[in-house]
Amino acid sequence: MNTLSRWRRLASVCLVSLGATVASADDGMWLLNAPPTAQLQERYGFTPTADWLEHLQKSSVRFNNGGSGSFVSADGLVITNHHVASDVLHKLSSADHDLLEDGFIARTRDAELPCLDLELNVLMSIEDVTDRVNAAVGADLDPAAASAARRAVLAEIEQESLAETGLRSDVESLYQGAQYHLYRYKRYTDVRLVFAPESAAGAFGGDPDNFGYPRYCLDVTFFRVYENDQPAAIEHHLTWNSAGTQEGDLVFVTGHPGSTDRLITMAEMDFSRDVSVPQVLWWIKSREVLLNAYSKTSGEAARQAKDELLYMQNGRKVYDGEISGLLDPALKAMKQAEEERLRAYSAAHPELGAEGAWAEIEAAQAELTDLYARHRLVERWNFNSSLFEKARELYRAPTERAKPNGERLPDYRESSKAQFELSLFSEEPIYPEFELIKVKHHLEFMAMALGSNDPAVVIALGGKAPAERAAELVMGTKVGDVAYRRELYALDAAAMETVEDPMIALVRALDASSRAMQEQVDAIDETKSQAHARIAKVRYALDGDSVSPDATFSLRLGVGTVKGVQEDGAWIEPYTKIGGTYARADLHEQVFPFGLPESWLEARDEVAADTPYNFISTVYSIGGNSGSPVLNRDGEFVGILFDGNIHSLVWAYAYTDTLARSVNVDVRGILEALDSIYDAQELLAEINAK
Amino acid sequence: MNTLSRWRRLASVCLVSLGATVASADDGMWLLNAPPTAQLQERYGFTPTADWLEHLQKSSVRFNNGGSGSFVSADGLVITNHHVASDVLHKLSSADHDLLEDGFIARTRDAELPCLDLELNVLMSIEDVTDRVNAAVGADLDPAAASAARRAVLAEIEQESLAETGLRSDVESLYQGAQYHLYRYKRYTDVRLVFAPESAAGAFGGDPDNFGYPRYCLDVTFFRVYENDQPAAIEHHLTWNSAGTQEGDLVFVTGHPGSTDRLITMAEMDFSRDVSVPQVLWWIKSREVLLNAYSKTSGEAARQAKDELLYMQNGRKVYDGEISGLLDPALKAMKQAEEERLRAYSAAHPELGAEGAWAEIEAAQAELTDLYARHRLVERWNFNSSLFEKARELYRAPTERAKPNGERLPDYRESSKAQFELSLFSEEPIYPEFELIKVKHHLEFMAMALGSNDPAVVIALGGKAPAERAAELVMGTKVGDVAYRRELYALDAAAMETVEDPMIALVRALDASSRAMQEQVDAIDETKSQAHARIAKVRYALDGDSVSPDATFSLRLGVGTVKGVQEDGAWIEPYTKIGGTYARADLHEQVFPFGLPESWLEARDEVAADTPYNFISTVYSIGGNSGSPVLNRDGEFVGILFDGNIHSLVWAYAYTDTLARSVNVDVRGILEALDSIYDAQELLAEINAK
Repeated sequence: MNTLSRWRRLASVCLVSLGATVASADDGMWLLNAPPTAQLQERYGFTPTADWLEHLQKSSVRFNNGGSGSFVSADGLVITNHHVASDVLHKLSSADHDLLEDGFIARTRDAELPCLDLELNVLMSIEDVTDRVNAAVGADLDPAAASAARRAVLAEIEQESLAETGLRSDVESLYQGAQYHLYRYKRYTDVRLVFAPESAAGAFGGDPDNFGYPRYCLDVTFFRVYENDQPAAIEHHLTWNSAGTQEGDLVFVTGHPGSTDRLITMAEMDFSRDVSVPQVLWWIKSREVLLNAYSKTSGEAARQAKDELLYMQNGRKVYDGEISGLLDPALKAMKQAEEERLRAYSAAHPELGAEGAWAEIEAAQAELTDLYARHRLVERWNFNSSLFEKARELYRAPTERAKPNGERLPDYRESSKAQFELSLFSEEPIYPEFELIKVKHHLEFMAMALGSNDPAVVIALGGKAPAERAAELVMGTKVGDVAYRRELYALDAAAMETVEDPMIALVRALDASSRAMQEQVDAIDETKSQAHARIAKVRYALDGDSVSPDATFSLRLGVGTVKGVQEDGAWIEPYTKIGGTYARADLHEQVFPFGLPESWLEARDEVAADTPYNFISTVYSIGGNSGSPVLNRDGEFVGILFDGNIHSLVWAYAYTDTLARSVNVDVRGILEALDSIYDAQELLAEINAK
Repeated sequence: MNTLSRWRRLASVCLVSLGATVASADDGMWLLNAPPTAQLQERYGFTPTADWLEHLQKSSVRFNNGGSGSFVSADGLVITNHHVASDVLHKLSSADHDLLEDGFIARTRDAELPCLDLELNVLMSIEDVTDRVNAAVGADLDPAAASAARRAVLAEIEQESLAETGLRSDVESLYQGAQYHLYRYKRYTDVRLVFAPESAAGAFGGDPDNFGYPRYCLDVTFFRVYENDQPAAIEHHLTWNSAGTQEGDLVFVTGHPGSTDRLITMAEMDFSRDVSVPQVLWWIKSREVLLNAYSKTSGEAARQAKDELLYMQNGRKVYDGEISGLLDPALKAMKQAEEERLRAYSAAHPELGAEGAWAEIEAAQAELTDLYARHRLVERWNFNSSLFEKARELYRAPTERAKPNGERLPDYRESSKAQFELSLFSEEPIYPEFELIKVKHHLEFMAMALGSNDPAVVIALGGKAPAERAAELVMGTKVGDVAYRRELYALDAAAMETVEDPMIALVRALDASSRAMQEQVDAIDETKSQAHARIAKVRYALDGDSVSPDATFSLRLGVGTVKGVQEDGAWIEPYTKIGGTYARADLHEQVFPFGLPESWLEARDEVAADTPYNFISTVYSIGGNSGSPVLNRDGEFVGILFDGNIHSLVWAYAYTDTLARSVNVDVRGILEALDSIYDAQELLAEINAK
């Protein structure tokens, strides 16, 4: 019965609270160079200063494996989520030593463990380059030519900036291509592991509790960035305030939300509902089944698959939530009303030049419909195989290198080179038996999704049964060997054509048609960008700065308050207590994923059970925000974001704070666990919380 | 590496051993009225007598929930597999008492537990009615009219036979509709549970070991059939021979294989590969993910979902195996050669009238392609909901009852009435919270598979979000209540139109189009039946009786020998020992699904560890054969079939004995477990093994 009323409430959220068109400060993922100053002042009586903004910006860290974090000491100490760190922990583990299972603590700097291929970025500056981009892309170009021109000018800007400043330079496309901002980042690639709890504590409650609340997770991990083999000296880092927060407090979040679909058109939303989300869900669920079954065959198989399985389970909850929302007529009505408002204004103001834009997007989506699954399965998803991915990167490298920088595929541009090589030559372990089942699965999935007569499927299968072909590819390739990868990376395009490795041969056989498909997708995206840029003008004319751009994994500022939630007729308090973890574990008889690790069981009597542990806020967040610091008015660290509740899954399409909440670890819970459970006195001394 | 060579071997099986066109005795699922007498004599020097065949036939039992079994005492004792019994055990369980987890033993007849809706059948006679069926279906009728005529004559034959003999009478369509045989069954519906092991023993090794070998499963359960509240007196029952078998022994299996696709055409095989298997696999895997996630939320949820989850996991392995086989070019080549052989003979012998048959089947499959998913999701799969299924049965009952018997849908014919009502009024528990997640899932799955604008999807969603709609349907309907079902069942069609129950209303809104779709599918099947009947004439002209018909869940005789298998360069002995169970459990640290129950752990020192426990044979079997008795030359019980190894999954399309094996529990293992672990002396006395 509990479940029922939760769903009813979820459905009703959309009906009652999605109607607003003018955003409050809470309803936004704000650019650091365009904060919601007026709304903040109006609602909270708070005005961010330039110093305050700069301090937050430069204390924030982007994890290029897909998350957020922040500096918390002058010696390069960084905090993020355990689940952001988990793929790093997985790569550092082996059959004999499982860092996910066991956790890790370095009690001296010598003991800190170098990560294999982790890059952290800190945003140093933002520059609006919209005019330069638009000037380079002639209005009379067809989409393919416009796309090439745009790619060329973006590469030129990035390369110029890199040469000038030495900083990683990425141009962000904002408002679906209506604005272009140049982001310059300081890169850190010598990153070392300092502390991680056991996954039984960091991911306590596992899949069933994921996107739930109340929660009891110590979802934190500490790293340290090094420069010249010394801890990096960091000017901007966050002070910890051990007083934490109280219910009702204004809080901020700086982080890197990955992707939202707030500003998409109806045609794009229909496409998500009928094409992309269903296809991605099938792919995710099929992989979840595969990984689950493989995990059950042995403890070592479970260890190999654990991180990827957690990732699939998380993705499945996200997309299941999305399809629920996309099928909700209330959401559709809200979206429709918003689109009608824009179209009416556009019709009344032909001088804005947006007429026809919606129809162009609709036509582009229709073209993408036939292409989508094939593009994903052949080009984008890399056969779900690390070996395939590396083979493709190696095969394409000499061809791309030979092109002018601006004509290369994005991964091969000079501005991406450092990260590209870091990843290509990573010593991360690759497990042949695990690759084998994944490649076999991909071959079968492709054949089922595209039909066994699809030309790419015929090439992929190579006239063999899937199991036999997977064995030939995985056991036959040498690209698992870093030395061999370095050897191939030195070849020119002509030499690459003669390499006899079976995985390279597969990539080669697919390459022409796969590239052609990518170009077709790029042209469609270009058409959409241009149309969106015209729609954006209508929106500005109507709403001005009151709407933030969709998330793009660039730094954003979120705003909200600590607030409980009325759910199923009961009030859920905003804070959980650390002692509640033991109670929940006992309720589930300490059985996975509710079994606590030894360290916690031993410390049971020492832990101050009443310490606030996790809490919720109304801050707008989404995947990629994981690990974002939660800050008080003074810009002090009072927690770390790690999840949203189940109601937050509609946030991809619309903001509401009736039931949706972000979920965070409280600063007080972290300090108490470090002290009473892990006895991490060195870490506590370094953090030096006030 | 183990996995790799297994796959390579699997692939090579098809290459080396599928070429034969004339079947040996082992290569068949033989009709009891057409046993492979010549082949048995030639290969094994064995000739079955009429008495021997009758004894086996009448000792064999069909479990109408989808399995096989046999009588093993004169007092109605029946043995089958634990996994055949598991849905019965699940229905008899509650939150407080889990028969799957705990097992069950009735030490007196009074303690035997009545099952809720289990029907067992014993085949009493077979009569060839092909001529009568063909005479009734005029050659000049179009497919729809032919289908109606065929349905009418089948119903007429069945009803006539039921009235005459009082026996359940089903006409089996054999050789894809080339022959029709009337099967008469004695029905038993008062079935009581006698003994079931804990699922930790009955399904030891769970999903990872499923379709594997070596194995260690006590996959047995005993029931007793009653008549007039007394144990039924059974003339034909099997004698147990406690000497068991030895490697190389000839063995027989009588059981009810569900479905094979040996005689399908290339067009039908392509359809399986490109349409039906992919769509069924998506459905199964999506449900597996749902059930797994639900199971993790609480112990009670896990109990509710357990039986269905096991079923999905099993189905996933079966269909994953099928798609692997269907994508194997060796299997395709074999099939192609066989089809060319038939077509060449057909072309040379136009008097057989088979010309054009293959093209007609191909056209029929093409028509089915667009219909398949929709037919399954709207009509066949009943929204994955017991409540929906019962609502539909109730809604259709008065309309169908009002028709002449021969025009009714099969479930509503007089010959099916008893079983239909047994199931409709079953007291099996229905869990609203479990139904809720399943109906929500089905609504979302339908929308994704068919598109949200599909008319059936629009009706199903009723203008609401999936969660909201599922809540309305599941919490609003009263069909979960048996008394209400009896009330509705008494209504006539006009009264049924006014019933306001939301689930009935949904069924009503879908009914016209859903029925129309079923009629279209029936017409396609009819076209195929007619074409197959013509192809069958070609096959008979070429091969005579040497080919058995595809499986149809009717009684069949299988033949083979006890034989180990050479796999991965190692010889796997045909027998495992009961003591090996403890070793395997210890290897996996007694963790699920390898944890042994208390009863086994306590008896560890008493069990004769060397007792043969499970064994493999070359007998051809498939799903539905589960629970089939394994018999020696004297027709004595020497084991019970419960699985095939992973290589047997190609048996749906072709027989091979290079690597494929059936997997059985040995009679000696059963006796030892009953004695030393369960101290089931009453049962042992009744079985009275020689």
